[in-house]
Amino acid sequence: MRPNFKDEAEPRQLYLAVYRYYRDQITERRLPPGSKMPSLRTCAQELKLSRTTIENAYLQLAADGYIIAKAQSGYYVTDIADRPLPSRNTARTQDTPVKYNLSSSGVDREGFRFDLWRRYIKSALRQDDRLLSYGEPQGEEDFRQTLSAYVREHRNILCTPQDIVVGAGVQSLLHILCPLVREKATVSFPTPSFLQGSTVFQDYGFQVRYRNKDSGVIYVSPAHMTKWGEIMPVSRRLELVRYASGHGSLIIEDDFENEFVYLQKPTPSLFSLAGGRGVVYIGSFSRLLLPSIRISFMILPPELKDAYLAKAASYNQTASKAEQIALCQFIRDGHLAAQTRKLRRLYSQKLKQLLETVEDVFGPECSVQIGSAGTTLALSLPSPLTGEELKARAAKEGLRLQILRESPGELTILLSCSALPAQDFYPACSLLKKLAE
Amino acid sequence: MRPNFKDEAEPRQLYLAVYRYYRDQITERRLPPGSKMPSLRTCAQELKLSRTTIENAYLQLAADGYIIAKAQSGYYVTDIADRPLPSRNTARTQDTPVKYNLSSSGVDREGFRFDLWRRYIKSALRQDDRLLSYGEPQGEEDFRQTLSAYVREHRNILCTPQDIVVGAGVQSLLHILCPLVREKATVSFPTPSFLQGSTVFQDYGFQVRYRNKDSGVIYVSPAHMTKWGEIMPVSRRLELVRYASGHGSLIIEDDFENEFVYLQKPTPSLFSLAGGRGVVYIGSFSRLLLPSIRISFMILPPELKDAYLAKAASYNQTASKAEQIALCQFIRDGHLAAQTRKLRRLYSQKLKQLLETVEDVFGPECSVQIGSAGTTLALSLPSPLTGEELKARAAKEGLRLQILRESPGELTILLSCSALPAQDFYPACSLLKKLAE
Repeated sequence: MRPNFKDEAEPRQLYLAVYRYYRDQITERRLPPGSKMPSLRTCAQELKLSRTTIENAYLQLAADGYIIAKAQSGYYVTDIADRPLPSRNTARTQDTPVKYNLSSSGVDREGFRFDLWRRYIKSALRQDDRLLSYGEPQGEEDFRQTLSAYVREHRNILCTPQDIVVGAGVQSLLHILCPLVREKATVSFPTPSFLQGSTVFQDYGFQVRYRNKDSGVIYVSPAHMTKWGEIMPVSRRLELVRYASGHGSLIIEDDFENEFVYLQKPTPSLFSLAGGRGVVYIGSFSRLLLPSIRISFMILPPELKDAYLAKAASYNQTASKAEQIALCQFIRDGHLAAQTRKLRRLYSQKLKQLLETVEDVFGPECSVQIGSAGTTLALSLPSPLTGEELKARAAKEGLRLQILRESPGELTILLSCSALPAQDFYPACSLLKKLAE
Repeated sequence: MRPNFKDEAEPRQLYLAVYRYYRDQITERRLPPGSKMPSLRTCAQELKLSRTTIENAYLQLAADGYIIAKAQSGYYVTDIADRPLPSRNTARTQDTPVKYNLSSSGVDREGFRFDLWRRYIKSALRQDDRLLSYGEPQGEEDFRQTLSAYVREHRNILCTPQDIVVGAGVQSLLHILCPLVREKATVSFPTPSFLQGSTVFQDYGFQVRYRNKDSGVIYVSPAHMTKWGEIMPVSRRLELVRYASGHGSLIIEDDFENEFVYLQKPTPSLFSLAGGRGVVYIGSFSRLLLPSIRISFMILPPELKDAYLAKAASYNQTASKAEQIALCQFIRDGHLAAQTRKLRRLYSQKLKQLLETVEDVFGPECSVQIGSAGTTLALSLPSPLTGEELKARAAKEGLRLQILRESPGELTILLSCSALPAQDFYPACSLLKKLAE
């Protein structure tokens, strides 16, 4: 018997209802592992719901590991029902400890000077008077001044400290931004993989699409177009800026990993190409400092300033004040620029080394995609396994990895060099080869 | 004379060098506003550089507002050199420095042991491995374990670490909660003063009301019913819990300042009165530690758990990982409990002292409202001024205060004792009296 979802009034509720229905079917093994999910069209017809609702539910099921997409074939139920439930008390401790983490976007241990950072935090914590009060809603003023000088020097972006809003991570900034641009109604992301971003827009009632320029908001990461670090060429940047301006769309430029553009010169930001109009620029430090430091910032274009200022006092600052003070001085003393140069050298070298290792270990049977930015390459290799099977096998051996795509007989795996020490490349790749056979 | 850029080896350097050269020409008015830039081809030939390099430099100059493209004609210098630069320092510095802050909800300088906190942060920053990765979306697991033990001991609340969600302040938590309970559609706040809370609900499309129990969500701070610290008696708490349960309303219990209930024993939480169903409990540390430490947590009732878990991975943690680790150990070592006792004693004493000072200075003409919690009293006194007039006069003299109400001939002012040292009570009150006359 098919369920009736029509009682659930709101579209959002509908998609959750479909999600829950299939989740329960899967966990209760009424849909056993390996079985094919109904096609989007069939499912939409049977449940009398829109294809988008079904698609959203499926995307969420896939994101949560219940189903997996296979190229040109559709969605299949994973073996999640066979796996022990995450026990209420830290299943994690029972897992095989991670020996080689090829999926981490953490920072190379050698790449971060803890001693230095500790010194700046210690010095920030000595500013008793400042720490005794709440932080400025927009972010500490001296920090915003420093940021505006920093982006001028490093990204050629002209803005005043008053244009900058600081927050604890990109999501915190989107929580401030989304309500200001709600009338845009639709948002386009380059891929479904930036779930953290799309979730926030969905929460505010935006219709989320992928690679659809005819949207009120166009979210892009020009230096991180694909997981393996393809960057957007200047010509396409210009085209995008012109298109958005002509159609009244707002561009959100998440300048993630722009620091790690190795193979050519850093390209101008969309923000500056657009002359600072129609673009919100978002910068982060998690890839440059520690992922655990939650500080991001956005630069608002003039047309959003009034709307923001009218509400600014209603939002408390989310980023740690001590960390803002520390980072401010850290940047002023030139350490962030030095850190960027160091990591760029280090990662560029490591990525090259990883590529050589991969070619050496996997030989001509495999193919590699590599971009001109970032810390990750995509390796496609023949394997009789499904992605889930390989991941499970690998987890048992302490190897953690991320599957990008799978098709019958072939898996595409993302290998990140950032957190893994270079001396582990060879043993990690050899282990991966053995497991995938 | 034309510059020679050939020493700059990298293409990036070249384009930047050209950019800087023309920028300086323009700002130093050697290329006056309105003059035409050399064509790309001419310029490339003269500088013996590629057309692309020149084009990139021009694009950047245009992006930064130095030149502007005119259709079918080329680039022209703008009037940027004539415009005043955005001033780097804001007006704020011209204000009279604050001498007596009677409106601050900061922490008493004597009440916080910076040396101790610095030690815990330092120790947290030594956990290199943990800090090299992103934090858990729900909050660090050991911290949530510690929190669940803490609320059990201090608030009689039974919950597991899995029920707890950590975030950087109450707003960050509401950003996760609101989308989960969107179908409730209406929310009631006790007063319009908690703008930070009502803004978030409004952003998610809720209809915000005040003191209206017939709402889908009822937001209350039982230990902070009014600005001057009235608390909700147990009888009303029980009544509210029963009413909400009967009407299917969700209570959000923001347990703000429950630690500062002086005049009677701390009252049971709504969460525990309701047996953990139909209530979301929110706790914060900003009044106990430093306002600048952005860590709050919420305890979800079982009926919201599934919906949260389905989306948990989509939300990045906003609170600083280092501060979570530090606070976790700080609580385990008993310092938070000790800090609470110390502040409760200190604030209770200071509030009494402030009351005596107020009665002494203002005499029988004034009336005072004081609650059994908090750090604030409400003083009503006759004055020919409006609230804004008094605030403006006070600001000029370095006195900061908050107006609660005004009626012709009478002002009601909130006086907070928390951040002001006790020795300043008398001079601050005397100054206020003089200004209000």
